[in-house]
Amino acid sequence: MAAIRSLISSVLLLVPFAANAQDSRSEWRSLDPENTLYMELESGRVIIELAPRFAPNHIENIKTLVRENYFDQQRINRVQDNFVVQWGEPAGAKPFRKAKRTLFPEFMQPAEGLNFAPLPDADTYAPQTGFIDGFPAARNSEKGQAWAVHCYGTIGVGRDTAADSGNGAELYAVIGHAPRQLDRNVTVVGRVVQGMSLLSSLPRGTKSMGFYERRDQHIVINSIRVAADVPEAEREPLEALRTDSPRFATQLEAKRNSKDEWYKSPAGHLDICNVPLPVRRIR
Amino acid sequence: MAAIRSLISSVLLLVPFAANAQDSRSEWRSLDPENTLYMELESGRVIIELAPRFAPNHIENIKTLVRENYFDQQRINRVQDNFVVQWGEPAGAKPFRKAKRTLFPEFMQPAEGLNFAPLPDADTYAPQTGFIDGFPAARNSEKGQAWAVHCYGTIGVGRDTAADSGNGAELYAVIGHAPRQLDRNVTVVGRVVQGMSLLSSLPRGTKSMGFYERRDQHIVINSIRVAADVPEAEREPLEALRTDSPRFATQLEAKRNSKDEWYKSPAGHLDICNVPLPVRRIR
Repeated sequence: MAAIRSLISSVLLLVPFAANAQDSRSEWRSLDPENTLYMELESGRVIIELAPRFAPNHIENIKTLVRENYFDQQRINRVQDNFVVQWGEPAGAKPFRKAKRTLFPEFMQPAEGLNFAPLPDADTYAPQTGFIDGFPAARNSEKGQAWAVHCYGTIGVGRDTAADSGNGAELYAVIGHAPRQLDRNVTVVGRVVQGMSLLSSLPRGTKSMGFYERRDQHIVINSIRVAADVPEAEREPLEALRTDSPRFATQLEAKRNSKDEWYKSPAGHLDICNVPLPVRRIR
Repeated sequence: MAAIRSLISSVLLLVPFAANAQDSRSEWRSLDPENTLYMELESGRVIIELAPRFAPNHIENIKTLVRENYFDQQRINRVQDNFVVQWGEPAGAKPFRKAKRTLFPEFMQPAEGLNFAPLPDADTYAPQTGFIDGFPAARNSEKGQAWAVHCYGTIGVGRDTAADSGNGAELYAVIGHAPRQLDRNVTVVGRVVQGMSLLSSLPRGTKSMGFYERRDQHIVINSIRVAADVPEAEREPLEALRTDSPRFATQLEAKRNSKDEWYKSPAGHLDICNVPLPVRRIR
């Protein structure tokens, strides 16, 4: 077969772990079960890594909601093409117990003390981009601010017009081109590390902004659990490549200036949201 | 219902035409039926606007293939999450008649004479970005080059390692974050203007690079036709907003610095691939 070679891949979220790989184990970090969520759909499990560095209060509230079984039998009610999948119900639709209804926004954090690994590449939206503890981020050194940026797979907190109207009962995942205009406007709480395609391949809603027309089109969420609350045998042993590791630096450079002879004009640059963040299953 | 307001939308590809709108008709342009393709799937019609300004020879070859019924009963055989949907078969799998098997690459064009409407915003990958005749594009004035950039919905020509190994028999559509590393490495021939979600919501392939495991998973393409060859009653009367119109400039500025009070920190900047390119049906 005189095959026309497929395009060089852009993103590989999940890489298989070769037992004989010459990995330095220290280049990988285990996902913290206390900051990992399992969203169970009929189609499978979506795994979310939470980012308490960026949004400690919202994440505490989300975990409180999860432990109150708030999300169980809630629904994905919005799938807007090239934008977001959204789930949960507006506050009030289901009782809150200990969870808070309003939270002070966590759109940004003080940059000081954060382990920011900068990219040298120019960015359209921020003075500087890079990674903080495995998450794509941006920094404004002049203002002393840092924030998680919206990339494919980013999880954020839906809110009303008031900045403090988000509480984590309604969440979204980005399923399209990075909607960077949302940066510094919503609280980012994490990213999807496995099962992304269970969200991204859902039928698009046909109402305004991608809402489903009818309730029977909604996708039921069987449950959301904190991984730490799930029996160990049912957990996924995932590791993420450290974004401050030499291996990751090599991968960034390969993405920036590919040595693959397929590329005739290496890009020379790298967009913070055009970077694979490798995750592997260790057994 | 104490609704948490949904996120402000990022992209609206298809806008309904309000008959009483104060549109200046000249701000919209009809899609040229000679440069519009209808890809007919079981699930519906995907409409592609071709961009002869960027790739006249490849587009001529693709239209030759279309008119040889080359694509009829071909298949979508690859759906890679956050990257591309790909269809057609490698050259040789189905006979070519008049269509060429190899073409000189059309990765870039001389910038001179192209109607380039620049954006003021910095770009990670190119010295300058903007629009050329309705298509997102980039320019390197020093080198006198311009090219169509890879955004969500962009259609490009699959190729093997050799730069001239693409011929249009294998095409892809971008279904994820803009894979800008492909710019200047493949020939871009157009963009999806309707039916994008028929591609983006397809099940992801589970083999390497998103290929489907089995042939029975492939999505059959009933046919691809040039709109001009379709009876007028079966055509879609679509118009695209001119990217050099005042209305479009207003939309860009609203995206860059939203006046909506939902936004607490207007972005101030705009990424060439984070821009809706409105298309409407006129009757």
